[in-house]
Amino acid sequence: MPRTPLITLITDFGPADHFVGVMKAVILNINPDVQIVDVCHEVNSYDIFDAAFTLAQSYRFFPPDTIHLVVVDPGVGTARRPLLARTIEYKFIAPDNGVLSLIYEREETIEVRHVTSDHYFLNPVSNTFHARDIFAPVAGWLSRGLEADKFGEPVTDYTKFTPPKPKRVSDQLVKGVVLRVDKFGNVITNITPEDVPALFAENPPPFRIIVGQQEITKLNLAYSMGKPSEIFAIVGSSGYVEICTNRGSAAKALNAGRGAEVGVMLGEATAPTP
Amino acid sequence: MPRTPLITLITDFGPADHFVGVMKAVILNINPDVQIVDVCHEVNSYDIFDAAFTLAQSYRFFPPDTIHLVVVDPGVGTARRPLLARTIEYKFIAPDNGVLSLIYEREETIEVRHVTSDHYFLNPVSNTFHARDIFAPVAGWLSRGLEADKFGEPVTDYTKFTPPKPKRVSDQLVKGVVLRVDKFGNVITNITPEDVPALFAENPPPFRIIVGQQEITKLNLAYSMGKPSEIFAIVGSSGYVEICTNRGSAAKALNAGRGAEVGVMLGEATAPTP
Amino acid sequence: MPRTPLITLITDFGPADHFVGVMKAVILNINPDVQIVDVCHEVNSYDIFDAAFTLAQSYRFFPPDTIHLVVVDPGVGTARRPLLARTIEYKFIAPDNGVLSLIYEREETIEVRHVTSDHYFLNPVSNTFHARDIFAPVAGWLSRGLEADKFGEPVTDYTKFTPPKPKRVSDQLVKGVVLRVDKFGNVITNITPEDVPALFAENPPPFRIIVGQQEITKLNLAYSMGKPSEIFAIVGSSGYVEICTNRGSAAKALNAGRGAEVGVMLGEATAPTP
Repeated sequence: MPRTPLITLITDFGPADHFVGVMKAVILNINPDVQIVDVCHEVNSYDIFDAAFTLAQSYRFFPPDTIHLVVVDPGVGTARRPLLARTIEYKFIAPDNGVLSLIYEREETIEVRHVTSDHYFLNPVSNTFHARDIFAPVAGWLSRGLEADKFGEPVTDYTKFTPPKPKRVSDQLVKGVVLRVDKFGNVITNITPEDVPALFAENPPPFRIIVGQQEITKLNLAYSMGKPSEIFAIVGSSGYVEICTNRGSAAKALNAGRGAEVGVMLGEATAPTP
Repeated sequence: MPRTPLITLITDFGPADHFVGVMKAVILNINPDVQIVDVCHEVNSYDIFDAAFTLAQSYRFFPPDTIHLVVVDPGVGTARRPLLARTIEYKFIAPDNGVLSLIYEREETIEVRHVTSDHYFLNPVSNTFHARDIFAPVAGWLSRGLEADKFGEPVTDYTKFTPPKPKRVSDQLVKGVVLRVDKFGNVITNITPEDVPALFAENPPPFRIIVGQQEITKLNLAYSMGKPSEIFAIVGSSGYVEICTNRGSAAKALNAGRGAEVGVMLGEATAPTP
Repeated sequence: MPRTPLITLITDFGPADHFVGVMKAVILNINPDVQIVDVCHEVNSYDIFDAAFTLAQSYRFFPPDTIHLVVVDPGVGTARRPLLARTIEYKFIAPDNGVLSLIYEREETIEVRHVTSDHYFLNPVSNTFHARDIFAPVAGWLSRGLEADKFGEPVTDYTKFTPPKPKRVSDQLVKGVVLRVDKFGNVITNITPEDVPALFAENPPPFRIIVGQQEITKLNLAYSMGKPSEIFAIVGSSGYVEICTNRGSAAKALNAGRGAEVGVMLGEATAPTP
C-alpha cells in the first residue's frame, strides 16, 4: 500500500475566515485519503518574501513526495500564472509571483510548469479565490498520482526575486539585514557563520553587532545563557545569526523589524561607530 | 473499505485554551479512524450569525456525508436543545440557537432531531462545556455509522433567524448591510448581482455605492486592479458584492463593520446624496 | 491492524512561524502513519505552569496510548534533560523543567526516563530548537512502537513544582488564587467544591467571594443564567470554581489575572471586608 500523500499549506488567510477550511474541503473532495498539514496561515497579508521564507524554513523536513501549496496571492484574478514546480523530492504549487524564489535558489534541479489544464479546476473559477478554485484542486489531483505534465507546459520565465545577501564592506565590516522577527521577538538576520567565519573561529576577535543605536558584543550558545535584559547574538535553528534576549523580545528592545540594517564589526572599536 | 469519515469544527473557542483539543480527544476516543478538519475556531464570542455565515460559506465544499459540528453556544447548560440535522448530503450537530439558520434556508430537504439519547453523552454532563460532553460524543458516534434516529425524535419548532435581505427601495436604490469583514479588510455586503442586475449588464449605468460617508463608483474584476488607496466594489468568492481596496483594508478606510448600511444608487446623481 | 497512533502537541510557538509545521514534518518523516492533534500552541511564552495546566486539562480525554508532546522550553540548549514519562495509559515527552508537574501529581504510577539515545535525534542537534531536533523525533520513533527503555534510563530527581493549593484560613474563610483566564474572560480559580463543601450543600449559607475590590455573592449553574453585567460564580468544566459574567469578560470587569487572590467567606458579613 502506498503511503498517505501529504499536502502542506502556507497562506496569508489567517484563522478567522472560512478560507483555509474551504481549501481543505476542496482537496478532500478530490482525494479523501490525503493528509493535510498546516505550516502557517499567518503570513503577513500579501507578503511574498515572508511566505517564501516560511516555505524555505520548512519544506525540506517533510517526507519525499510531499506537495507544498503556497498561496499568498495579491495578484489573484489577473494574468499572473499558477505554477507547478517539481524538484527531485518535492512538488510545489503557487502563483507565479516570486513566492518560490528561495526554492529556485536552493534546488539545483527544478522543473516549473504553467498550470493551464482548467478541467482540473473548480469551475466556474472566481476572480478572487484561486486557492479554492485552482490551487487546491490542482494539489488534490496531483496527490492522487497524476503526472506533472498533465497540468501544463514547462516555462523558464517565472518570477524570481533575489533574497538580500550580506555584503563584505571591508575586512572588518559585514553588512546584512533583518529577515524576520519570530514569535519570541528573536531578530533573524540574513548573516550566516560562513559570512563572518572569524566570529566562530577558536579564538574569535572582539566584535560589535550594530542594530539601530545598539551594539551587541556577546555571542551565546543558548537563549537561556543570557543575563536578564542582556541582548546577545546566537546562531539560530535556521542557520542565521539571530539577536536575542533571554525570555524577552530583542525586537522590541532594539526597535528593529524586517529590513533593518545589521552590521558586524570585527576587531577593537577604534573610532566612534558611524 | 469505506472512506474515512470527516467531521468539521466551527467554534468560538479560540486557539489559546484546551477546549478544541479536548473536543478532538473525545471524538477520537469514540472513533479513532475519523478525520477532523478545523474550519474556524475564531468565530466572534457568542456570535451566532458569524458562525452561521462561516458554516454557510464552507459546508458545501466538503465531501458528501461530512458531519459539520458547530458550537457557538452562549446558552450552554440551559434548556436550549442539542440538535442533529440531516440533509441529503450532510449532517449537522449544533445547539438549537439559530446557528443552523442559513442551512435551513438553503437546503430544501432537511430533517432536524432533538438529541436526547444521553447514553451517547460523556457523563456526567457538565453545565458549561457541552461541546465536550454532548456535541463531540454525538459527532463521534454518528461518524461510526449510527443512524440519526438513534439520537432523538424529529422536531419542527427549532430556532431560526432570517438573515438580512437587501431591499429594493426604488428603481434606482437598493439597500443592504455589511455581513462581515474578512481578514484582509474586505467588506462583504449581503447584496448579490441578482439584487442589482443592471450593474452587471453589458452597458451598466453609472452608479454609486454608499457606505458611511463614502461613495464608491467603480466595479473591478480583481483586487489588484485597484489603484493605490482607491476603494472599489467587486463580486467576491461568496457571490456577494464586496467593497475593497488593493492590498489594504477597505473596512478601515470606510470605518464600516458588520451591520453598516450599504446603498446602491443606479443612474446619474441628480441631487446631493441624502 | 493496530490503531493509528496519536501524538498531541502543546507548545508556546504561536501560529505565525514555521516551528509547529517543522515539528510535524519531522514526526511524519519518521512515522507517516501517525495522527497529530494540536492541543494548543498559544501557551504564554516560556510559561511552564500555563503549559502544565493545559496538559492537565486535556490529556485524560485522549485514547489510551496517546503520546503527549509538550514543548515550552526556555532552557533549550542547556543541561536541562529531555524526559520521557509513562503512566499506565499515556506517554509524555517534555523538557525537565516542571511542565509535567501536574501529571506527576495526578498519576499514581509513573515512570520517568532521561532521554539520552541520541541516535534517535535529528543530528546535528541545534542549541535553539530541540522541539525539532530531539522532542519531535523521539515522539515519532515512540509512535512506531519502540519501547520506552530504548530511549534512556529511569530518573527520580526530575523537576516538579507544587501547584498552588487553596488554604483554609478559618472556618469561614478559604483563600485561593486565579489559575487562568480563558478566552471568554472566565476567571478560573484553584478552588474546587471539595474546598468549600458548605457552598454546595443543600442549604448553602450566605457567602462572599472576594476578588480584588469586588464581592461576588451569587452562584449560578450556567453562564447564561447571569443577568446583564452581573458577576457570579460557577463550577466550570475543569472542576474549579470560576468567576464569570454572561456574555462578557469577568476578568476585565474584575481586573483579575493569574495569581490574583480569591477569598471565599462563608456566613453573614459581620464586619467590613479586610
